Amino acid sequence: MICAETKVFPVEALHEFCTRVFLHFGCPKEDAEQAADVLSCADLRGIDSHGIARLHSYFEMLSEGGVNPKPNIEIVRSSSSTASVDGDNGLGLVVGSKANRIAMDLAEKAGSGWVSVCNTNHFGIAGYYVLKALERDLIGWAMTNSTKLVAPLWGAERMLGTNPIAIGFPGKQEPPIVIDMATSAAAYGKVEMARRKGNPIPSGWAINSDGIVSTQPEDMIEGGALLPLGSDREHGGHKGYCLAVMVDMLSCVLSGANWGPFAPPFALRQEIEIPTRSVGKGIGHFFGAMRIDGFIDPEAFKRQVDEYIRVFRATKPAPGTSGPIIPGDPERQAEERRRGNGVPLVPAVVEELRDISAKTGVPFD
Amino acid sequence: MICAETKVFPVEALHEFCTRVFLHFGCPKEDAEQAADVLSCADLRGIDSHGIARLHSYFEMLSEGGVNPKPNIEIVRSSSSTASVDGDNGLGLVVGSKANRIAMDLAEKAGSGWVSVCNTNHFGIAGYYVLKALERDLIGWAMTNSTKLVAPLWGAERMLGTNPIAIGFPGKQEPPIVIDMATSAAAYGKVEMARRKGNPIPSGWAINSDGIVSTQPEDMIEGGALLPLGSDREHGGHKGYCLAVMVDMLSCVLSGANWGPFAPPFALRQEIEIPTRSVGKGIGHFFGAMRIDGFIDPEAFKRQVDEYIRVFRATKPAPGTSGPIIPGDPERQAEERRRGNGVPLVPAVVEELRDISAKTGVPFD
Repeated sequence: MICAETKVFPVEALHEFCTRVFLHFGCPKEDAEQAADVLSCADLRGIDSHGIARLHSYFEMLSEGGVNPKPNIEIVRSSSSTASVDGDNGLGLVVGSKANRIAMDLAEKAGSGWVSVCNTNHFGIAGYYVLKALERDLIGWAMTNSTKLVAPLWGAERMLGTNPIAIGFPGKQEPPIVIDMATSAAAYGKVEMARRKGNPIPSGWAINSDGIVSTQPEDMIEGGALLPLGSDREHGGHKGYCLAVMVDMLSCVLSGANWGPFAPPFALRQEIEIPTRSVGKGIGHFFGAMRIDGFIDPEAFKRQVDEYIRVFRATKPAPGTSGPIIPGDPERQAEERRRGNGVPLVPAVVEELRDISAKTGVPFD
Repeated sequence: MICAETKVFPVEALHEFCTRVFLHFGCPKEDAEQAADVLSCADLRGIDSHGIARLHSYFEMLSEGGVNPKPNIEIVRSSSSTASVDGDNGLGLVVGSKANRIAMDLAEKAGSGWVSVCNTNHFGIAGYYVLKALERDLIGWAMTNSTKLVAPLWGAERMLGTNPIAIGFPGKQEPPIVIDMATSAAAYGKVEMARRKGNPIPSGWAINSDGIVSTQPEDMIEGGALLPLGSDREHGGHKGYCLAVMVDMLSCVLSGANWGPFAPPFALRQEIEIPTRSVGKGIGHFFGAMRIDGFIDPEAFKRQVDEYIRVFRATKPAPGTSGPIIPGDPERQAEERRRGNGVPLVPAVVEELRDISAKTGVPFD
């Protein structure tokens, strides 16, 4: 990924730039910083597709008035341990963070807190919200739907987003276990990268517009679809489809957001059709938080998490591998490197940031 | 599956037989009927591997004193919306049902209820517990760990159970969406069946004892392992591994049960090694229940579930298929058939039931 023209930036500089761009559009200071926090978290953790590389999408949505920079984010219904939130079409980075805090506040009082959110937009990496829960010594959950890209098993068209699921569990001496996974077999970004490089994609990632499995990335991009985790019936493709439906139910049907094929596009320049109709408000998220001491002594829990991590690291390795890793390892290692060395950005992203700089007057590098 | 020697039994007769076998071992009447309910549910819904076909395992565990027929099932810790339960080494069918009721009771008061359970045993099909929640108009969740059979991605040995996840959402005019899925690429029963028939298994289901992918079922059975959902790194095998870890954390680490490779075997005759050590009590389950009206008007929710089902049924079908089905369809259709026509049992199962009958004096057919 790092080529000769890759430039490296301190994360603080990228955070500052994002904050000032959001401020330029009238976001309150706290919201602008919050939104920049989520993007910087992705940049640090090596999830380049979800960090500052997406600033242009937020920029365009704000420029065109597609997102509300000053949302009035409200709880519309609640019980002791649950709530639903209307994000007033704000940035998902801001709405998601606020809704996640509501879930954590509920958990601190009632043992657990569960929040479904409608009328929101793309919220960045699901893992960010889980890390915030870990800071408060809670088990954190986060899910979201997204623009349709994935076919259900036995379907020949895009009907579901890549609908990620994240969950985190704190360790004591070991780092936390942080799961953050899309429910598709592969990420759209990997198909795009294969097209740029002129490479085929593995069988099991995608179908063409006739619903036939294809190894040509352009077949997927031009009207085909990604396949759900498991890929085909024989390998459990119905299970990936089920997980995506679960995320849709919890994030959208439970909040009153647009589910399945009706999720609005994330970015204006995205090469997808506009949904044929609306069945709710915006996209949807789902957050959960659980107090460990509502179940077990937290010290005993964390000691077992440590032991779990050590036992799994000691698994006999499959030939040609160095053995199983622990969920969250790659992102944590990227964060350690990038905090010290900076965040590498490819030329196309640097160019976009310069373009945003020119249009907003916010200085960049 | 239905061969010449398959016999068909009314579900009521099988339920009665199971109940009387459990009574024979001193289970209280209510518990015996409860345990039979869970097994009959699997038999009706076509999940033959988890119904009366497993009575012999429960029978042996009870005969050998490996399971407590009169458990004192207790809440050991709780908050407004959470609890952990010690199952006192009772039948999982009984402990699971009681813990699930605790989760539902909590949900009715606090909006949601979450229960982690230790010191329990195999609980049958996860879907049963979700169906009970649907009867009370709740969204229901159920998970459990199980004896090790699955390798983590890049591992060469069994470290995890097939750790299923179930969740259900009620419709209004349409039937509910009921998800019930193991987190492995394929079920162990499918590998066993291939061995009996002398057939190879698809690449991506299993590895041999050296950690190399194999299409020979005996390679998996004799010291190999199943692969997690996604199978290999390229197709998302890390995601299936993550899901199995999530289930282990919620069901076992949160309750104080044996996780990962330390889960005790389900049946005495199971051809697996006894775990090297114990890190908790028994196996673990996790149940959740959520009140819909803690998030949204339940009528509006159910209308959207109906619409969701109709939209997904109308997906353009992939060639050679009749299009996507809705999670829970196959089980519901099996239940409709079998309620009328009876439950087919293969000769090996009938023989085992006759053996149980001879040993307990409970009459069978």
